[in-house]
Amino acid sequence: MTVELLCVGTELLLGNIVNTNAAYLAEGCAALGLSCYHQSVVGDNEERLEEAVKLALKRADIVILSGGLGPTKDDITKEVTARAFGRALHEDAHTKERISGYFRHMKTAGVTENNWKQALVPEGAIVVDNHNGTAPGLIIEGEEKTAILLPGPPNELKPMFEEAIAPYLNKLVPEGIYSRMIKLCGIGESKAETMIADLMERQTNPTIAPYAKTGEVHLRVTAKAKNEEEADRLLEPVTKELYRRFGDMIYTEDEKVSLEDVVAALLTDQKLTLTTAESCTGGKLAGRIVNVAGVSGVYSEGYITYSNDAKSRLLGVSSETLEKYGAVSVQTAKEMAEGAARAAVADAALSVTGIAGPDGGTKEKPVGLVYIGCYLKGHTRVEEFHFTGNREKNRDYAVVRALTLLREELLANRG
Amino acid sequence: MTVELLCVGTELLLGNIVNTNAAYLAEGCAALGLSCYHQSVVGDNEERLEEAVKLALKRADIVILSGGLGPTKDDITKEVTARAFGRALHEDAHTKERISGYFRHMKTAGVTENNWKQALVPEGAIVVDNHNGTAPGLIIEGEEKTAILLPGPPNELKPMFEEAIAPYLNKLVPEGIYSRMIKLCGIGESKAETMIADLMERQTNPTIAPYAKTGEVHLRVTAKAKNEEEADRLLEPVTKELYRRFGDMIYTEDEKVSLEDVVAALLTDQKLTLTTAESCTGGKLAGRIVNVAGVSGVYSEGYITYSNDAKSRLLGVSSETLEKYGAVSVQTAKEMAEGAARAAVADAALSVTGIAGPDGGTKEKPVGLVYIGCYLKGHTRVEEFHFTGNREKNRDYAVVRALTLLREELLANRG
Repeated sequence: MTVELLCVGTELLLGNIVNTNAAYLAEGCAALGLSCYHQSVVGDNEERLEEAVKLALKRADIVILSGGLGPTKDDITKEVTARAFGRALHEDAHTKERISGYFRHMKTAGVTENNWKQALVPEGAIVVDNHNGTAPGLIIEGEEKTAILLPGPPNELKPMFEEAIAPYLNKLVPEGIYSRMIKLCGIGESKAETMIADLMERQTNPTIAPYAKTGEVHLRVTAKAKNEEEADRLLEPVTKELYRRFGDMIYTEDEKVSLEDVVAALLTDQKLTLTTAESCTGGKLAGRIVNVAGVSGVYSEGYITYSNDAKSRLLGVSSETLEKYGAVSVQTAKEMAEGAARAAVADAALSVTGIAGPDGGTKEKPVGLVYIGCYLKGHTRVEEFHFTGNREKNRDYAVVRALTLLREELLANRG
Repeated sequence: MTVELLCVGTELLLGNIVNTNAAYLAEGCAALGLSCYHQSVVGDNEERLEEAVKLALKRADIVILSGGLGPTKDDITKEVTARAFGRALHEDAHTKERISGYFRHMKTAGVTENNWKQALVPEGAIVVDNHNGTAPGLIIEGEEKTAILLPGPPNELKPMFEEAIAPYLNKLVPEGIYSRMIKLCGIGESKAETMIADLMERQTNPTIAPYAKTGEVHLRVTAKAKNEEEADRLLEPVTKELYRRFGDMIYTEDEKVSLEDVVAALLTDQKLTLTTAESCTGGKLAGRIVNVAGVSGVYSEGYITYSNDAKSRLLGVSSETLEKYGAVSVQTAKEMAEGAARAAVADAALSVTGIAGPDGGTKEKPVGLVYIGCYLKGHTRVEEFHFTGNREKNRDYAVVRALTLLREELLANRG
């Protein structure tokens, strides 16, 4: 079964935004075992869009369109696709009610007249609720071909694809695709690839594909199988082999579980509380920990101490340490972690101090130098890192390394 | 004059990499005043690539292909395109010498036999030297149509486009493209569009195109003009009209300037310091403020107070307030902001307290309810928001709204 992607939007044609939707959808379709031979981008132009829709429907069994479902009259993806299938548009009461509810809930902004355009759906189409915006997703099933219409904003498209479209597509593929996402922390992508080069070459079912995320490596192990049982039989030996090679670097096999989820779960299991003391990351580490819904059981407060004065006053870092070793030093990172644990009466504390850039670097302490401290029940470990990205990337890497460090300490503490 | 982009690579079709080349080339072509109506991606398959090349050459004056110029037999872009123009390949002595030199310089890796494939060029093609790799760029000028072949790796493609291809294309186009990015906060996309519907319809040069970001709206105003002076003459009246309609909602005209940049600049101008007290955003607001390089002059510390105890202990929120009104209330937001300013001895403070979800909502206080407090020199303003996204989106919206609120207060304070 073949699928083709058609992304609609003048901002893509002008290069104002990078087409991350195409990569996301392509990856999702490949994981489902669908073959994709073409991706295209067209603007919000009726004639060209119609041509593109027809060409895609000629070439592939399923065409996934994204973008152009907004409330303005520039948005014509639905109208043009419905016409290609010979379907009229009618108002969908359920969607109208959902959009009303969306605006009632928002309170600040009223429904404008053009929003009701989004409640129009092609005859016989499957309506997919959008939990993060107003435009519904639509599945138009023709006699031989199917079109799937998704909203353009990635934070609407991605959850909709995951929740509704992937399960829909999965039913269409006779040999299903089953995959596990083996997520690693504390290792670089090249190193990880080198360690499994032989497996990647040898394996055909399941296959192994690595994806680099900031500070993490994810390995997708994918099997083609008739059912879940057969899939498990195929996936299990490869998973075991990966554990043999990477050991504790593997923090989950579950696509939906993040590194912060795992750290929060370890803290909960061990009945430990955590606090944070951040300089260069300036709240990003805490922000990531608070991503975990229900984290309040283990995390109740954190400190952003950007200035030396704040480090001393809030965390009790001694002025002698700051003068002698500087704010970016092993000693300061250690005192920050210990001081934060003391101030918050927490069992564990993470501290981050470094030079994120672009300025502030010296020969001895260059941009990218970051110290991360991890206090756990009376003992503090400090690690030194040298990141090579820009300000934003250096701070993101520091956050992942801090979580990785705490995870290591919590695993050791568990024994 | 029209241009079309055709990116070649199975890794793009599988979604293993994001197509940043397309965005880069599209932006570059738009800046040169070339109209681009189609972008496509195909794999390294001879038949489908040939079809795609022919279709693109039919639709556009110039087709830019990227990828598939490597040394392996999978790489067929050059062979297929040359055939479409009826040109044979011959060995280019200059390129052969350049490739030899490249490998001499690299020292570590020797030339493999298949590298000489990269010295083959179509008859009559313009050869563009690659200063960052082995594959040369190629320009094949037909009687009516032109194909430009570029290597796939971005660190080879980008410098080659800038140094050789953009100047080549520039000679073909009489007019250039100039644009301004007008960024708004404190207004939704539909509302903003409604307010400029007439302009969007009426304007042809310059054009106005809106883009929604989380909590912000960006309007790109683009003019076709012979030079910068003429462009300014065209852009100025439209920019003025947008200021007349949106007033202070416009926070910048500079593509590179963010909301946090503007807030930090206002604080610096007014010689004011800022602190933050975050509950549901848990450090994300501070993390965004610290995005600003050199923010230490105005921001030195912040508090993450996720628990009631932390709100009382660190910020002095009274237990009576927490009991009577709850942690998510106008009163608590007010006391958080005031307490943070007091604790940090700051002139201004932002506080955020809310229910980000997915759990924790009640009928009176549903998921998405967020109070944002802004203390500024003795006065505190608290705003109530109802966000409708998931946990992540609600927290991101709260961060933007907090920055927007502070900006409003700082503008009022400036008088």
